[in-house]
Amino acid sequence: MEFKKEFTAGIIIIGNEILSGRTVDKNTSFIATWLNDRGISVEETRVIPDKEKIIIDTVRELKRKFAYIFTTGGIGPTHDDITAESISKVFGQKYQYHPEAYKILEKFYKNQDFNDGRKKMAKMPEHAKLIPNPKTFAAGFYVENVFVLPGVPSILQAMIPQLDNIIKTGKKILSSSIDTGLRESLVAEGLSRLQDKYKNIDIGSYPYFKEKPGTVLVLRTTEKELLKKCEEEVKKLVLSLS
Amino acid sequence: MEFKKEFTAGIIIIGNEILSGRTVDKNTSFIATWLNDRGISVEETRVIPDKEKIIIDTVRELKRKFAYIFTTGGIGPTHDDITAESISKVFGQKYQYHPEAYKILEKFYKNQDFNDGRKKMAKMPEHAKLIPNPKTFAAGFYVENVFVLPGVPSILQAMIPQLDNIIKTGKKILSSSIDTGLRESLVAEGLSRLQDKYKNIDIGSYPYFKEKPGTVLVLRTTEKELLKKCEEEVKKLVLSLS
Repeated sequence: MEFKKEFTAGIIIIGNEILSGRTVDKNTSFIATWLNDRGISVEETRVIPDKEKIIIDTVRELKRKFAYIFTTGGIGPTHDDITAESISKVFGQKYQYHPEAYKILEKFYKNQDFNDGRKKMAKMPEHAKLIPNPKTFAAGFYVENVFVLPGVPSILQAMIPQLDNIIKTGKKILSSSIDTGLRESLVAEGLSRLQDKYKNIDIGSYPYFKEKPGTVLVLRTTEKELLKKCEEEVKKLVLSLS
Repeated sequence: MEFKKEFTAGIIIIGNEILSGRTVDKNTSFIATWLNDRGISVEETRVIPDKEKIIIDTVRELKRKFAYIFTTGGIGPTHDDITAESISKVFGQKYQYHPEAYKILEKFYKNQDFNDGRKKMAKMPEHAKLIPNPKTFAAGFYVENVFVLPGVPSILQAMIPQLDNIIKTGKKILSSSIDTGLRESLVAEGLSRLQDKYKNIDIGSYPYFKEKPGTVLVLRTTEKELLKKCEEEVKKLVLSLS
């Protein structure tokens, strides 16, 4: 299954904590599921360290390849939060306080010290548009097709739905999972024939090894009727092998 | 903290199931933790689909950039398992049965049908060296600096320890976590001063938002004494702010 470029996305996870093994990346899974429902296919994820040159080069490369880029991580108040400044450089825009983002934070911190670290979270590329943060108030932002989000999953998950009217949507990507209860090597041959027949369906095969080994088959497509037909044929195949 | 190229690694996760959001990638975390103990730093992870050209291009690019490349996924018996054939093309080697890998599988399937799907798992680049699989017997392999492993985490985890004498080791990467109990925006300024002072330590700052927001600081370095000194200064900073 191939997607037109206008319905593709790339994800850039910015964070040493993923590369060091300390943290498992859950943002790709959340973003991809949300995008799939809107007919957008994630074609690549990159996990990169908090280094300016690498961030700039990666964003430059991927924003040409895909219709939408999502970055996560590096927009907090500390020294290792360099994403917003790096994105400013990608677009050749000044890195400065966003008036609205600044006001939101000023209000939120009204009874506390509105220190430099806190102010920093309002600094963005000059022409950035805000992505409101209903949870902790420090906004994300986007410039052209690059959407800049925080790394903390619960905050990211509260912010993503706000992009609903900004991202152009395609045909929802439908999927169907079938647990065959059979070893992958038994279904392989029949499955290969089905994949040849159904070019517009991605048939994935995922073995598992519990008490008894088995395989989950996942069919993905934007075509509802085709999915139903293929699903029936897969079930027939499984029955014939069981 | 910068690592010499000889102590760097890249990870390539081959699998539509991660990009579709269905599965969360746990292999990066396991491989990175194992490598860190051996003084190897993971500098980048890429998640890519099961498409030959993309696999070939990505492996070619990263194997020049880093000392070690680990791929996961796509070495099973089904139509979407194209990693081994793609790696053969990367190195311009024939894609053929590996005699030893074939024998192991033949023995394992002796009372069952040793069908084409099962045989396929013994196909590798001509000069591949085996990575034994104590769990399900279908071996992984490596060619030069590219290590090809399965995607199922439990099998990958059983295979990785077998690379112990093959991967050159550096100085173990040590780390220390300190839960400050403070909002990230409060520690930001002091932390920035400490990072300037301790150039050979990576200081990461990871906010969390439970009942009360707080921040975990993670110090990473190969220098034991330096880590201790920095740790003490961080603790002093936290006390002064609490």
